[in-house]
Amino acid sequence: MSIDRKIRYGMVGGGPGAFIGEVHRMAAALDGKMELIAGAFSSKPEKSREMGERLHLDPDRVYDSYEEMAEKESALPENERIDFVSITTPNFLHYPVAKVFIEAGIHVVCDKPMTNTIEEAEELCRLVEEHDVIFGLTHNYTGYPMVKEAKKIVDDGRLGKLRKVVVEYPQGWLSQSDNDDEVWRLDPDKAGISSCIGDIGTHAENLVEYITGLQMEELYADINTFGEGRDLEDDANMLIHYEGGVQGVLHVSQIAVGEENDLNVRIYGEKAGLEWHQENPNYLQVKYPDGAEEIYKRGNPYLSDVAGAGNRIPPGHPEGFIEAFANIYSNVADTIAARLAGEEPHEFAQDFPTVQDGARGVHFIHKSIESGKNRRWVDMDYQPPGS
Amino acid sequence: MSIDRKIRYGMVGGGPGAFIGEVHRMAAALDGKMELIAGAFSSKPEKSREMGERLHLDPDRVYDSYEEMAEKESALPENERIDFVSITTPNFLHYPVAKVFIEAGIHVVCDKPMTNTIEEAEELCRLVEEHDVIFGLTHNYTGYPMVKEAKKIVDDGRLGKLRKVVVEYPQGWLSQSDNDDEVWRLDPDKAGISSCIGDIGTHAENLVEYITGLQMEELYADINTFGEGRDLEDDANMLIHYEGGVQGVLHVSQIAVGEENDLNVRIYGEKAGLEWHQENPNYLQVKYPDGAEEIYKRGNPYLSDVAGAGNRIPPGHPEGFIEAFANIYSNVADTIAARLAGEEPHEFAQDFPTVQDGARGVHFIHKSIESGKNRRWVDMDYQPPGS
Amino acid sequence: MSIDRKIRYGMVGGGPGAFIGEVHRMAAALDGKMELIAGAFSSKPEKSREMGERLHLDPDRVYDSYEEMAEKESALPENERIDFVSITTPNFLHYPVAKVFIEAGIHVVCDKPMTNTIEEAEELCRLVEEHDVIFGLTHNYTGYPMVKEAKKIVDDGRLGKLRKVVVEYPQGWLSQSDNDDEVWRLDPDKAGISSCIGDIGTHAENLVEYITGLQMEELYADINTFGEGRDLEDDANMLIHYEGGVQGVLHVSQIAVGEENDLNVRIYGEKAGLEWHQENPNYLQVKYPDGAEEIYKRGNPYLSDVAGAGNRIPPGHPEGFIEAFANIYSNVADTIAARLAGEEPHEFAQDFPTVQDGARGVHFIHKSIESGKNRRWVDMDYQPPGS
Amino acid sequence: MSIDRKIRYGMVGGGPGAFIGEVHRMAAALDGKMELIAGAFSSKPEKSREMGERLHLDPDRVYDSYEEMAEKESALPENERIDFVSITTPNFLHYPVAKVFIEAGIHVVCDKPMTNTIEEAEELCRLVEEHDVIFGLTHNYTGYPMVKEAKKIVDDGRLGKLRKVVVEYPQGWLSQSDNDDEVWRLDPDKAGISSCIGDIGTHAENLVEYITGLQMEELYADINTFGEGRDLEDDANMLIHYEGGVQGVLHVSQIAVGEENDLNVRIYGEKAGLEWHQENPNYLQVKYPDGAEEIYKRGNPYLSDVAGAGNRIPPGHPEGFIEAFANIYSNVADTIAARLAGEEPHEFAQDFPTVQDGARGVHFIHKSIESGKNRRWVDMDYQPPGS
Repeated sequence: MSIDRKIRYGMVGGGPGAFIGEVHRMAAALDGKMELIAGAFSSKPEKSREMGERLHLDPDRVYDSYEEMAEKESALPENERIDFVSITTPNFLHYPVAKVFIEAGIHVVCDKPMTNTIEEAEELCRLVEEHDVIFGLTHNYTGYPMVKEAKKIVDDGRLGKLRKVVVEYPQGWLSQSDNDDEVWRLDPDKAGISSCIGDIGTHAENLVEYITGLQMEELYADINTFGEGRDLEDDANMLIHYEGGVQGVLHVSQIAVGEENDLNVRIYGEKAGLEWHQENPNYLQVKYPDGAEEIYKRGNPYLSDVAGAGNRIPPGHPEGFIEAFANIYSNVADTIAARLAGEEPHEFAQDFPTVQDGARGVHFIHKSIESGKNRRWVDMDYQPPGS
Repeated sequence: MSIDRKIRYGMVGGGPGAFIGEVHRMAAALDGKMELIAGAFSSKPEKSREMGERLHLDPDRVYDSYEEMAEKESALPENERIDFVSITTPNFLHYPVAKVFIEAGIHVVCDKPMTNTIEEAEELCRLVEEHDVIFGLTHNYTGYPMVKEAKKIVDDGRLGKLRKVVVEYPQGWLSQSDNDDEVWRLDPDKAGISSCIGDIGTHAENLVEYITGLQMEELYADINTFGEGRDLEDDANMLIHYEGGVQGVLHVSQIAVGEENDLNVRIYGEKAGLEWHQENPNYLQVKYPDGAEEIYKRGNPYLSDVAGAGNRIPPGHPEGFIEAFANIYSNVADTIAARLAGEEPHEFAQDFPTVQDGARGVHFIHKSIESGKNRRWVDMDYQPPGS
Repeated sequence: MSIDRKIRYGMVGGGPGAFIGEVHRMAAALDGKMELIAGAFSSKPEKSREMGERLHLDPDRVYDSYEEMAEKESALPENERIDFVSITTPNFLHYPVAKVFIEAGIHVVCDKPMTNTIEEAEELCRLVEEHDVIFGLTHNYTGYPMVKEAKKIVDDGRLGKLRKVVVEYPQGWLSQSDNDDEVWRLDPDKAGISSCIGDIGTHAENLVEYITGLQMEELYADINTFGEGRDLEDDANMLIHYEGGVQGVLHVSQIAVGEENDLNVRIYGEKAGLEWHQENPNYLQVKYPDGAEEIYKRGNPYLSDVAGAGNRIPPGHPEGFIEAFANIYSNVADTIAARLAGEEPHEFAQDFPTVQDGARGVHFIHKSIESGKNRRWVDMDYQPPGS
Repeated sequence: MSIDRKIRYGMVGGGPGAFIGEVHRMAAALDGKMELIAGAFSSKPEKSREMGERLHLDPDRVYDSYEEMAEKESALPENERIDFVSITTPNFLHYPVAKVFIEAGIHVVCDKPMTNTIEEAEELCRLVEEHDVIFGLTHNYTGYPMVKEAKKIVDDGRLGKLRKVVVEYPQGWLSQSDNDDEVWRLDPDKAGISSCIGDIGTHAENLVEYITGLQMEELYADINTFGEGRDLEDDANMLIHYEGGVQGVLHVSQIAVGEENDLNVRIYGEKAGLEWHQENPNYLQVKYPDGAEEIYKRGNPYLSDVAGAGNRIPPGHPEGFIEAFANIYSNVADTIAARLAGEEPHEFAQDFPTVQDGARGVHFIHKSIESGKNRRWVDMDYQPPGS
């Protein structure tokens, strides 16, 4: 990054009490590469202004609506306006917010799932191409260094031809129904057609695709709703056929009582297997048919360069969720900086989920729900625009 | 047990080099309650005699065939002959061997899966009832004290109404195909219609039924064969609907490279969840929505009586696979001893898998294969004879 | 914190290639409460300026020496100058740097060990009192929420009267001697009289004191130097007698080959015990004589308020080393903000290591070395000035 | 083993309610190599007879006293009498019991600590030599296959020159004092001068010596008694200097509340380190300065032959405490069988703790207590008779 200033960004969403907006801000702040200078933090202007004050922003850069923000920011001189916008609203707003900023030529970081409909997702793909903006999706789990190491191990053929994938994402935070009213992820108007698959199933899907590069051929989903009165599913179990005869099991849940955020993946090839757990993210297990199991540990020189690039502190000093999240932001910021400097971004800087990954995720959500509703396999062949 | 001698048993199978016969003998020996005094250890008479010598048996009690053994043993005076026979042959022989001993009025301990066909399994159910013999099936994993504790926790309602079950049994020992010729489990003539489901899928199925008491309503199986030239499946992934709306995921594999014998189960209810791993069997995790996770540890006074009854040594002194296996033998022996003494066996002594459990397992194998072949859900409603 | 701007700080040390300075900057940046606006990053002015550019600082606020920085910053109007200085130099500079800033009335965050001599440490205690500045020492491990929970559990008497403490800090990074020349911690001129005890022994000592409040009465240290040609110890094993008859074992090492940063502590009382591992910091084990072990997990509502206050993201989303470090910075910043606002800081905001903790650490280092050299117990009774 | 019968043994101690006698019987029974045919199970003749009945022994071989047993058994024809005696009494009886059987020319398996005094221990060394009997001591933890693998790794130099050893044995079973009256290990008349060190400290000492072969040069012990009214120590913490400059930390406790039986050891050399935990005994960690940690798992072909020899069942089928204990018995029995057959026992069969190991343990106990009482280092140079 050879520009002589920090990258500047604004945020839409992330008002008082919003957990994920706060995470985005911490992730963006961590490396000192970028600064938050503008925001439309809430659909309620007074909430937005409250947040702006709390963050010590210039009141002129705190807006009453995202439309106003897009309009006014893009009207500013290039060296004053935000370089990108971070979208951390509930799902249904991702599309309209992203659209106006892309059309204003402002780069985007967007939370997942990218949109509520496939049409919106594909429209964003086209808009990104048309307006030539950089678009990063926060499938943050791919930011963990040991996930990058896993991908490298698979890419290098060290597992041999792949055979089987097991990916799980059990959570228990919706096992009790007490606060359903306050959970927008259970509200179809805000979350779209899915709760559990949309919120965490896409992470599981994306994690497998990131590590293995495998595309799904067909999928069978068994979807369930346990919480009384809920309109959206809170549990889903799937059989997946990937290309090349690879077999998959994917199960996710919001009612796996007592579980916290236990995303984990196991990948078995002909020669070796690997296993990674998000709740213990600094370690990666590699297993062999004829030798000792190996535990790879974050931060060590024996890891690959790409794992090292996503790394801040020495081995044994645990990095966590925010650091992984920060890697998405850092890579997007480096890519923007390279663009500003008229340079080619470093290979590793381009390692962040794209608008096409987002479209694949939305497609996955819709096809899973379709499979579950019809109790049949669905064809998963899909190429989002621009891929 | 109030008889004044050890229980006496003979073995069919378990000749030189047979792993599982040796395990049965160690399990039977552990508690000093029973002694091996007869055997037809191999279909090759000289191998049978070699094994008899190695075990220091009376040569008159080492037989050239199981038929001879059944005939001669049952002709001996009651106080000399074997009380039960232990059947540790390849699968296809379980039925004919069990049949002749049951018809001779001799109690049976039999390895799993019980038979190769549903008809044979049901015939054994009828024969056991007709001849009033005691029949124990070595679904040994239910012998672990912490599995018994898990069952008690579910029975006592401490998880609340059940919602979801995840049971896995990944192994990697068939990930390489080098020795396929020597593996009878891959030979349909010996193993029947299934390798992976028959060998380990039934353990997974039985473990869930033991702990939860849940019957399956319908099942969808995705069955796979990865090893080149294999006639039987070496991997299977299933969606299961249990009674009462409980959802299940069951996946088993013999090609999960690098895995050893990682049977494990997670059960989620409305109030709490539990988790148990066979490779770390002295511990049981119980998880709550609103409190610290608890780790129950084998051998402690705070556990239930039934867990205590399956327990030999103090906490922190690990018990393993053989001890769990021995609990099946010990319970069968105690039940036989009670019969001999004209007493009612203790409730805990009756805690071993029955001929009906065996029939359910065989039914499960056949229906899983049927589902997999036809790519459709199968109805799992089933009542074996005598249940 | 009711002031209407971010807290401003400058850094001394932390030039190009310095690991710990980077950690301090990330920790300070995480919560968006403070901003780095000045620095004397290296004793070599060109290095300092290089770092200033890389951090996009105003060149007028990047200084050639810490003396210049103290002088010029304190001469600035109150609303422009730095509120505090962060000292991340090698050990021997902590004292002179801290001294000039304290005398300039500027608050201080200082890395540990605080000084190379007891005299310097006590002088800082006096200066802090005399100039009434806020002084925070980065014994960062006390910033972990589950360490705070451990302290709360002990304070609440849930372990009963304490009996035994085992604290370990094995590292292996100096097991090979290849790069000794580049390691300032092995150079007595920079590190003082100790390498291993000074660098990590003090963390172990401080962690126990933080959690238990126990003062040492006497100590016996066995100190060792394994790396060839080293002047300072790289391993130490100690027996400790705390007040109230509590017995302690403390061992630390830089040559425990293959270990990364495995600080861990076990504390046993009459009623219960607890265990915490820095490499898996989101969990805390509590063990009982007569019930299941409990695993407390960061981020849950069932934890104490003080653990919750040190917490950023939900359970199962791992927080790590930087987050714990950030808690020290955040608390210091909140305390400074309260001072600026003329308010009393919140109880939790005052939860950071003080200049007296620093003096205790330096005393511990010197007495340990004294014990080791003389092969005898040393009296540990000690009250730093101002305590 | 080429004899045509099982090895025969008798037991002294192990009457009704005695935990450790039961463990010895299970361990001896496991492999079907030996049979229990005689016993003096209690100092109370009626208790001894009760036990004999329960074990279905020939009443003529159940004795009122160990003296009677030694006299009558040795008077039997060689092919009827016991080949060895197993001594499982409280500590103070080990010596007199062993003495009469050795003098009767009967081989011995004896529990640890071997005797209450050094003089008794040395006298047994001399008697064993004089009467040329086989003597095995049940330091059972050396029977674990992964401990044998650890020894092999050290012997092969894979850790490089050793530097540091940390061995721990925390237990919590005496953290509460309720049942002190029933605990013979707290009674100096039965347990000798030590409780904690004698019972478990010797296991820790023996484990290190077994794996590393290191002899102690000097030792400093800090001994503690926490339980009110106890005459013997229930906790001890030691600094140890082994030959060759290897530094050691050994700490053991019976009041580490909530701990079960957590014997564990870490050994660090110049090139690599290893770690083993008794409560998870099927795994061995090996750690390197510059590569992934390795987890060796019991039962795999990639392990050494000696680990394989102590192995009964495949990987992933956990073996535990009884199996390790059985390895001591099995090796003693094989050595006796070789003697009976006039053959040299297999190298691996001779892998059991000897009477000299027993004497070293007793010496260790006495010197530890001496050090603790006098608060000074003690010289540990020691060669038991016959070594």
